[in-house]
Amino acid sequence: MKEIKKILVANRGEIALRVMRSARQMGIQTVAVYSDIDRNAPHVRYADEAVCLGEANASVSYLNIDKIVKVCLEQHVDAVHPGYGFLSENPLFANALANNGIKLIGPSARSMELMGDKLTSKQLLEKHQVPMVPGLNEAVRDLSKAKQVAKEIGYPVMIKASAGGGGKGMRIIESEQELESMMERAKSEAASAFGNDAVFIEKFVTNPKHIEVQVLADQYGNTIHLFERECSVQRRHQKVIEEAPSAVLTEEKRKEIGEAAVRVAKACDYEGAGTVEFMVDQDLNFYFLEMNTRLQVEHCVTEEITGVDLVKEQIKVARGEKLSIEQDQLKIHGHAVEVRVYAEDPQNNFLPSTGELKVYVRPQGPGVRVDDGMELGMKVTTHYDPMIGKLIAKGANREEAIDRLIQAINNFRIGGVETTLQFCKFALNHEAFRSGKFDTGFVGKYFQPEILQEVDEPTMLAAAIAAVSSLDEGTKTPFFTNQKSMAWASRKSY
Amino acid sequence: MKEIKKILVANRGEIALRVMRSARQMGIQTVAVYSDIDRNAPHVRYADEAVCLGEANASVSYLNIDKIVKVCLEQHVDAVHPGYGFLSENPLFANALANNGIKLIGPSARSMELMGDKLTSKQLLEKHQVPMVPGLNEAVRDLSKAKQVAKEIGYPVMIKASAGGGGKGMRIIESEQELESMMERAKSEAASAFGNDAVFIEKFVTNPKHIEVQVLADQYGNTIHLFERECSVQRRHQKVIEEAPSAVLTEEKRKEIGEAAVRVAKACDYEGAGTVEFMVDQDLNFYFLEMNTRLQVEHCVTEEITGVDLVKEQIKVARGEKLSIEQDQLKIHGHAVEVRVYAEDPQNNFLPSTGELKVYVRPQGPGVRVDDGMELGMKVTTHYDPMIGKLIAKGANREEAIDRLIQAINNFRIGGVETTLQFCKFALNHEAFRSGKFDTGFVGKYFQPEILQEVDEPTMLAAAIAAVSSLDEGTKTPFFTNQKSMAWASRKSY
Repeated sequence: MKEIKKILVANRGEIALRVMRSARQMGIQTVAVYSDIDRNAPHVRYADEAVCLGEANASVSYLNIDKIVKVCLEQHVDAVHPGYGFLSENPLFANALANNGIKLIGPSARSMELMGDKLTSKQLLEKHQVPMVPGLNEAVRDLSKAKQVAKEIGYPVMIKASAGGGGKGMRIIESEQELESMMERAKSEAASAFGNDAVFIEKFVTNPKHIEVQVLADQYGNTIHLFERECSVQRRHQKVIEEAPSAVLTEEKRKEIGEAAVRVAKACDYEGAGTVEFMVDQDLNFYFLEMNTRLQVEHCVTEEITGVDLVKEQIKVARGEKLSIEQDQLKIHGHAVEVRVYAEDPQNNFLPSTGELKVYVRPQGPGVRVDDGMELGMKVTTHYDPMIGKLIAKGANREEAIDRLIQAINNFRIGGVETTLQFCKFALNHEAFRSGKFDTGFVGKYFQPEILQEVDEPTMLAAAIAAVSSLDEGTKTPFFTNQKSMAWASRKSY
Repeated sequence: MKEIKKILVANRGEIALRVMRSARQMGIQTVAVYSDIDRNAPHVRYADEAVCLGEANASVSYLNIDKIVKVCLEQHVDAVHPGYGFLSENPLFANALANNGIKLIGPSARSMELMGDKLTSKQLLEKHQVPMVPGLNEAVRDLSKAKQVAKEIGYPVMIKASAGGGGKGMRIIESEQELESMMERAKSEAASAFGNDAVFIEKFVTNPKHIEVQVLADQYGNTIHLFERECSVQRRHQKVIEEAPSAVLTEEKRKEIGEAAVRVAKACDYEGAGTVEFMVDQDLNFYFLEMNTRLQVEHCVTEEITGVDLVKEQIKVARGEKLSIEQDQLKIHGHAVEVRVYAEDPQNNFLPSTGELKVYVRPQGPGVRVDDGMELGMKVTTHYDPMIGKLIAKGANREEAIDRLIQAINNFRIGGVETTLQFCKFALNHEAFRSGKFDTGFVGKYFQPEILQEVDEPTMLAAAIAAVSSLDEGTKTPFFTNQKSMAWASRKSY
């Protein structure tokens, strides 16, 4: 057992605070790191110790492995929690810590590497009966071979540039005829874009859902799953709404997908908390997408329905404890939904909206949880991800969770920057979302910026307050919720 | 089925907000009432409509039945939620509403009356096999009869003045000898204090626990219980810490006490949410104390462990729905603990501490819930109960819930008034509380004001900020959590 008395959190914002809260409850000292412009951030004040890493630019601060390792050594840190993003899935960081006798709260560099390479991981996981999108796991250059593969897996298929990424060089092919005419074009595009004309062929999954499974593994080979999260509402591959459990999985499918996720974790000797992502088609067939070898942004909804503090479990595993929960002991209690609140302007192509938070009043109420790293007077800059925080609501069932979340959105008062709150509300209210019948095309299919133009009164009020008031006035009148409440003149008095 | 489109909440503060949040989620309009000094209170702004009742004095505002009924009629209100305190257990109010065709969200006046009179309720409940403290349910004047009764129930016994209340005229008697010498004195004291020398004799329960059971009943005779709450940590009969479930009940006892509570509710034809209070001795024998025919302050801990929104259930029952939950469907998930945060000075005999809230920053974090009706800049006055709010934490188990609650207390920054936060922290940290082995004598046994004199840094800081800063400065530096965090000078910078 490795004793952990002091943890450095190599991150900022809400996740740094989230980690430190759990560490402190376990009696563990916390060290924050921060860049110049985060000097006054809540995560810095919350920590027991805090060390400045340098300038705002992440490459010289939150991404700087050498500096962070140096701080760890100087502050006599036993372990590092990397949060998500930044260095959280960087095997070099994991190795640098290991070489200095510092425990990374997360999996080994080897597990990270195995899951970081898509082709390697696919080849490994097929041996463990993890369902993959049907296709050939090697490059094709020859048309007749391509035809044969496509026939076997059935149209529509997708041609992907072997060296590509981010959707470049991808084509959906509906028939053999189309394949004939497109194969050469795909190859030549791949060649000109990536200098390599090799392409992959795999089944194109129509209107897929994104469903992922939370896993936990200790150092002794015990691995469990904590059910699934559905994160199909995405915008440019960024999750917008996350919920647990999924509204559509049957009990049988839930068990199947959970067990598949456990096999993935076992296949890469996983340790700690991780997430196995799947693509799910309309018949609830699921296919491995990738594994995220860290805590996810959306881990909260799993915490809400299972009652498990995932950060504490991470720390316990890191110090060599066996998992304290067995699979059979886990039950789903209620339903939880999370929205990510970004400082982005949905009316303006979701461009980051920078500025000072001149009004900032968090919503409250039964089942409502706000995980944020911001506060009144703080500035949203372009240096980092513009996520202000996460708003989570739990209910006895899905409907209650959504109702509570919408009410919380209505009572979240943010002024000084544009936010995605109204966009999230639009999505939560949408019939397709309510019915559970939605997929990763949700935003593209249903969202038009004009939909938000009829902004509700309180948002206008918050904006008005931010515009005309000084900071203290803003804080004194924080949460008008509707027009009627403001019509003082019409009130009777006895 | 009675349609409920608009609810008036005949209350103020946190419970008014609590009720309105649930009503709004159900699509129901809300009407607030308020007194002059509550004009800017959050519950007033939150409501769809708000009507001033008049001066601060509760007898002309929140306790004024005629005015409230008049407002109900003028605002076309379908139902009234009374909260707790004020008119919530007043049969006259229940009748006045009924006579005007307005539904009270609560039991009938008859149920209130039945449970409001201790002697009547005891006589009724004995017929329903509800355990009572052993004793004679009629007055005794004669020594030989007193001896006989005391012998039957066993010493120690208690002599209570029949007409008394609030502990006056109560004596603990340890032996027959003592009874002989004290009986006459007790009678003459009763005669001089109350003009009536009749006394009761009942078993004296040594070091009892206060354990109560939440019940829910619909209009069709369906009654369930939602497990127990333990509220033994009390100060002058006022609950300080409440938790669910109790740390000491066995599964068997839990079932027994729950079923007894259901019998109590059935015996008085109860409707809605109610609480049956029991005294529990060291061998876990339980005895009926009284029934509270309303929502309790501490209802939140039950909500947290059952996932049931009790206010929504109250409203559903009031509009004639059948209970949607059956007894067997209810399970306990985790553990929840609540502390009541009062503006009182524990160092000065818990005198109410009035003034403006100059610093007010709520704690956050997984499992933390704050139900309050206050905000920055609001004044705590002597007109109403000085409760600022309730701080609730849920955890996977009792230890985690307590740890989270203590952390939340550490991060609850209140300046401008004294509060009971540190007193609550003392109690939560106490070995007797931690072990579960505590009773209603906890505060008297263990608490000395001096214990709190070593106040922690953040509390001092909040006080300092409140003293020297103007309001806006106070809001900008809200939550230093420890000394080290403030020692900026000692920090390193790369």
